[in-house]
Amino acid sequence: MNKDLLHTPEGVRDIYGGEYRRKLGLEQTLRQVIARCGYEAIQTPTFEFFDVFSREVGTTPSRELYKFFDKEGNTLVLRPDFTPSVARCAAKYFMEDRVPLRFCYTGNTFTNTSSLQGKLKEVTQMGAELIGDGSVQADAEMVSLVIDALRAAGLERFQVSVGEVEYFKGLCQEAGLDEDTELQLREFISGKNYFAAQELLQEREVAHSYAQVLLKLADLFGDMHSLSQAKALVQNTRSRRAIERLEAMDRVLRLYGVEKYVTYDLGMLSKYHYYTGVIFKAYTYGVGDAVVKGGRYDNLLHQFGKDAPAIGFVIVVDDLLEALGRQKVDTAPPLQKYTLTYGRADFESQLRRAIGMRSQGLCVELVPEEGLRQADCAGGPDR
Amino acid sequence: MNKDLLHTPEGVRDIYGGEYRRKLGLEQTLRQVIARCGYEAIQTPTFEFFDVFSREVGTTPSRELYKFFDKEGNTLVLRPDFTPSVARCAAKYFMEDRVPLRFCYTGNTFTNTSSLQGKLKEVTQMGAELIGDGSVQADAEMVSLVIDALRAAGLERFQVSVGEVEYFKGLCQEAGLDEDTELQLREFISGKNYFAAQELLQEREVAHSYAQVLLKLADLFGDMHSLSQAKALVQNTRSRRAIERLEAMDRVLRLYGVEKYVTYDLGMLSKYHYYTGVIFKAYTYGVGDAVVKGGRYDNLLHQFGKDAPAIGFVIVVDDLLEALGRQKVDTAPPLQKYTLTYGRADFESQLRRAIGMRSQGLCVELVPEEGLRQADCAGGPDR
Repeated sequence: MNKDLLHTPEGVRDIYGGEYRRKLGLEQTLRQVIARCGYEAIQTPTFEFFDVFSREVGTTPSRELYKFFDKEGNTLVLRPDFTPSVARCAAKYFMEDRVPLRFCYTGNTFTNTSSLQGKLKEVTQMGAELIGDGSVQADAEMVSLVIDALRAAGLERFQVSVGEVEYFKGLCQEAGLDEDTELQLREFISGKNYFAAQELLQEREVAHSYAQVLLKLADLFGDMHSLSQAKALVQNTRSRRAIERLEAMDRVLRLYGVEKYVTYDLGMLSKYHYYTGVIFKAYTYGVGDAVVKGGRYDNLLHQFGKDAPAIGFVIVVDDLLEALGRQKVDTAPPLQKYTLTYGRADFESQLRRAIGMRSQGLCVELVPEEGLRQADCAGGPDR
Repeated sequence: MNKDLLHTPEGVRDIYGGEYRRKLGLEQTLRQVIARCGYEAIQTPTFEFFDVFSREVGTTPSRELYKFFDKEGNTLVLRPDFTPSVARCAAKYFMEDRVPLRFCYTGNTFTNTSSLQGKLKEVTQMGAELIGDGSVQADAEMVSLVIDALRAAGLERFQVSVGEVEYFKGLCQEAGLDEDTELQLREFISGKNYFAAQELLQEREVAHSYAQVLLKLADLFGDMHSLSQAKALVQNTRSRRAIERLEAMDRVLRLYGVEKYVTYDLGMLSKYHYYTGVIFKAYTYGVGDAVVKGGRYDNLLHQFGKDAPAIGFVIVVDDLLEALGRQKVDTAPPLQKYTLTYGRADFESQLRRAIGMRSQGLCVELVPEEGLRQADCAGGPDR
């Protein structure tokens, strides 16, 4: 026997027993909360044509995609992210619809990272997308839905950080940065690499006053007070409107009664370039990465031929499960399973008992005594 | 906009709205029936090392696998079939366990067939595996579980065809066929290609009396009476024991009260070479292919280093859903969704109403009036 046969590739894993039961329980809880706000489940293919996840769409970089070919020679990609697929569906099946569309999904996503990074390459995600509603109320619905879902899952201590990419974009415009510099700077700032950001700004000879503000992005987080500070730092309308949008959203979040879970962080930028407005991430202790990521992507559907604003989020189910585990929160009741053992003489009576118990909804397994488990006792007890 | 962006690759598809709701409802029903017999859910990775699905294992042929590489240069395969993965898990985590193991799973499988065949390449499967119980009672449990699951799904008219690969193998042995001829013959017979089978037997100069019996396999189907006929046709112990096994299983199926759904078909052989004993397929009208496939695979776990008999089945959820659709069987209640529309003045009161209704478990969506759906009315009703 080849011992290697027992192994799974780096970054993917088997889940069974209590852990999987907790995962399924968690998914069910999250799904119920999301469904109650009118989101309807949708299933897209596990792989799609490369173009759906191309550079123009602004999702995962090409080097992190799993690519392969079908028999017709097309390049296929295992989805790294659901949002472009759901956007494609919305454009394909609901091109002419003017009413807002609400979709939710559960499934696995795949990123072909290097094993050295130690990250999972196959991750279960559950998410929701609200398409065709560009209002600040829609922003607030998404943020409060994330909070409701996490609370329903049993998470007590968590924070949702909210940013607005337009604030950063307005600043870059005000400072006269070209697109290339903006993209690089974005990568450095979202990676919290301020040293590289500083170097870049010096190299591009960005005026000191603007460079100071851009580097200050890291410190612009906290409550509503930090938003006022941020507003005072900028002159341009684009950045100021971003702050006003967050202030308006905050008023709606208070109506939902979830404001205590929210902090603002204008230095938060996403690696997904399709985000255009509010973005948010939920953090809790027990895992390093955000357990929820989301934001507004008002231009993405245009790539698929439908002009509609949109906002969505994704819950990284595996990470949330791990955080709940570390916080000793159980997400499924223990398994109640009855085992009825039978011998040569009492199979029929034990079977009848099992059938009766199962019809009452109980979980019952029928197990032969040890001597009767081999394939060669073909006749069984009736012979 | 590139119109092609809206397309999904041949053989995969989007599922949404009522169709997906029915699919999820169907999955839930099937899962409950399977869980009640003590099967515990397990999740294996979507892709595995090539060797798990290699020729020795006896699953899908290599040319029908989707293969690709990870950054470390390993060949990975999208799973075409769950059984080898579950066998691997059983060997990996339960190597020393002597008690029977019961696993069930739900997920998608992938076969890289040519588009000309018009088959789905990504298919949702739900299945169960019973490992470590070689008894005829285990065989009967699997067959009756399939019947219970299909009935619970609302299917009324269906048949489970049951065969036994040992009958065919015993015949081949008796006729003195070499392994190569046996494999070819198996392919022809399982493909119902009797002309090719006849030619092969003539070419290999198989004695007329044996050739007659082998070609007669096609006619050996029906009730218990066909089993007696089949028994009378052979001299070898292996084939006779296969019939005795089916006769014993039939007695147990009568205890379950499901015998009316079962017919026997000794000409049924599987494309999966890992099957060793009883095999079965469930057919209904509305779809051409079997909606359930299963069988005993007593040697497969040995490939992964654990010696244990095993039996399992898989329900092809997409095909079953299609059959149910054509038979006008609904598998989910219609969606009850309330839409609350708000204007500039009444957002707060509509929000409170929505929150109240949702807390009673109702599904409620909040939708702004048409004029308020654009991204630029940043302030919303509160301003």
